[in-house]
Amino acid sequence: MKKIAILGSTGSIGRQSLDVIRALPDELKVVALTGNKNLELLERQISEFQPKMFCSSVKPDISYGGEFVSAEEIASHPEVDLVIVATAGKAGLSPTLAASQAGKTIALASKEVLVMAGEIIVREASLHQAQIMPIDSEHSAIWQCLQGEENKPQRLFLTASGGPFYHYSQSQLTEVTPEQALQHPVWKMGKKVTIDSATLMNKGLEVIEAHWLFSFPFDSIEILMHPQSIVHSMVEFTDGSLKAQLSWPDMRLPIQYALSYPQRWPNPELPRLDWNKIRSLNFEPVDYNKFPCLKLAVEAGKSGGTYPAVLCAADEAAVELFLSHSISFTDIAKIVQKTLEQHRTIGQPSLEEILAADDWAREYATSLSLGSYDDPERRSNLEIER
Amino acid sequence: MKKIAILGSTGSIGRQSLDVIRALPDELKVVALTGNKNLELLERQISEFQPKMFCSSVKPDISYGGEFVSAEEIASHPEVDLVIVATAGKAGLSPTLAASQAGKTIALASKEVLVMAGEIIVREASLHQAQIMPIDSEHSAIWQCLQGEENKPQRLFLTASGGPFYHYSQSQLTEVTPEQALQHPVWKMGKKVTIDSATLMNKGLEVIEAHWLFSFPFDSIEILMHPQSIVHSMVEFTDGSLKAQLSWPDMRLPIQYALSYPQRWPNPELPRLDWNKIRSLNFEPVDYNKFPCLKLAVEAGKSGGTYPAVLCAADEAAVELFLSHSISFTDIAKIVQKTLEQHRTIGQPSLEEILAADDWAREYATSLSLGSYDDPERRSNLEIER
Repeated sequence: MKKIAILGSTGSIGRQSLDVIRALPDELKVVALTGNKNLELLERQISEFQPKMFCSSVKPDISYGGEFVSAEEIASHPEVDLVIVATAGKAGLSPTLAASQAGKTIALASKEVLVMAGEIIVREASLHQAQIMPIDSEHSAIWQCLQGEENKPQRLFLTASGGPFYHYSQSQLTEVTPEQALQHPVWKMGKKVTIDSATLMNKGLEVIEAHWLFSFPFDSIEILMHPQSIVHSMVEFTDGSLKAQLSWPDMRLPIQYALSYPQRWPNPELPRLDWNKIRSLNFEPVDYNKFPCLKLAVEAGKSGGTYPAVLCAADEAAVELFLSHSISFTDIAKIVQKTLEQHRTIGQPSLEEILAADDWAREYATSLSLGSYDDPERRSNLEIER
Repeated sequence: MKKIAILGSTGSIGRQSLDVIRALPDELKVVALTGNKNLELLERQISEFQPKMFCSSVKPDISYGGEFVSAEEIASHPEVDLVIVATAGKAGLSPTLAASQAGKTIALASKEVLVMAGEIIVREASLHQAQIMPIDSEHSAIWQCLQGEENKPQRLFLTASGGPFYHYSQSQLTEVTPEQALQHPVWKMGKKVTIDSATLMNKGLEVIEAHWLFSFPFDSIEILMHPQSIVHSMVEFTDGSLKAQLSWPDMRLPIQYALSYPQRWPNPELPRLDWNKIRSLNFEPVDYNKFPCLKLAVEAGKSGGTYPAVLCAADEAAVELFLSHSISFTDIAKIVQKTLEQHRTIGQPSLEEILAADDWAREYATSLSLGSYDDPERRSNLEIER
């Protein structure tokens, strides 16, 4: 019986992790849950799973025998076998570092952890024999395809659905509303990830994450548009052979694979591909110039230092501004670019330096769009030549 | 340096095996070659690769220092690390049995070996710790996808290009000439295999081969039509995840993988998939009723005993008759069916009993079509109700 801690149990991945655990009661046991502000849901989860430990940004007003301890304490606690990191933004950094230094098995759903602090986390995990397993569908696909292979592959192909606007013109993109952008054609996800999918920022963050997870050079990580989201990614080997992992788009599969690894467990609740319905799988090389967030992310990843942290923080701020109707869809990339341009990077940064860069970038990015979306004077800040 | 024997070096797979060995002179060395009747080519191969041993159906009239020994002796010789079995028809049975009993590593391209004598070969290989590796592109794909997986999969999907006539009507199929049938849309192969691909007999033989290679039940082996022949086969696991192996259709890849296993060797001569050109991969469940040879093969495989040997022999005889314009394309299935119907099977047959069944079936199948294709009286023999 594996003893599981879920950091971020009230989010989309956290809730789906609990679905998997519910379906496999003989294999998995929840020993810790952490939430942020959704106390009502966290209380219900605590009442159902009775974890030994729990944590949230505000202590819930419940009489419950479990211990209220910090996320870092949970992540490194001797009672915990496996830590699912499914927190939003930078919240996962410090607990993942604690789990790495405690030699835990880590199932990582939060992209920001490796994007912002890949160098530190990978080094500490390696030093303390912690294993980092991906929960993202693309990285899980690559990881599955690499099983049993003795030689380093030649190329990784991350697939991308392209989101709802892949075939929009530039002028159409300017008019996209938050309501439209929140309708992803394939995946049901949290708001931030859904907008990142529409700008392709998400795919850029995945390139950086793949670089750290598989210690793979950026130039050998390629992106293929694949609207059906059935092939979750592919690996090309040095003999020209490729392996692909396919499944119905359902995050419970990569979650369960990380929990069952190196085994696979039968779970009839997970959907099966039906080849009577899937008649065609389409692919198209990505247009790096069409979606500037993608290019910005890959460049920030290659530049390293604190650039990727600034990228994440500026994007988070910009997405919030877009969701509150303060800026347009295409302004997201402009804010991120301007913030990166204004940033002075620090090489091989400490966790503190990364978090400081995050603070600066968040504030700077927000300042770029202060005032209303319709104020022509403030808007001019964003008219940056690409 | 692996020391390789190639049984059937003058055939299509044999020649491509030598191409791979030529490209990897530091890894692979030919120590034995065997041919059948194409002495001219065999002599050229001997002169180029200077094998210690060679064999052919007629002893070539050359002054060469290598030993002329039997295929069985070569297959079990202490100097041989790996035996490629690429002979036609039943010729591979006895040498593969010898290699199995000598505990050799066997790279198997000849479908008939496992189709006709799967039970014996698999048992002897297991007893003597011989390893059987597939060279067929479909089985190599499955084998590649199974690497590193600890649990038995749920389903195997063999892909099939469908050959040149998959969308023909029954009346169109009757009119197909040998010249048309020899034009396979994707693969360049020997004549027998090319006709078997057009009748889908080949896919049926592959189902039986997969059953023995992966000790997998017939009912969990499915066939998917896939005209591009890029996805060579797929494996579905118990959690709903699938792995697929993809590559440009080129037999040198599965040949090299068997030779390099468990490693993969870089070989720039092997073609790479170009995603600028491949925009769509199409799939369609197979229509078992349209191509009777497929159904006959799967039924013979399930029935076991000497039925699969009779299937192979009757098909070989019928394909020969078709190639010599003695029967029509659709008569191939009728001859095979009639021969299977007339056969009295033997359970758990010995190699001798299998070879006797083969002799009987070959003779019986040929007798069914004696006389000319245009003789209405002889043709009536073949008018069997399906």
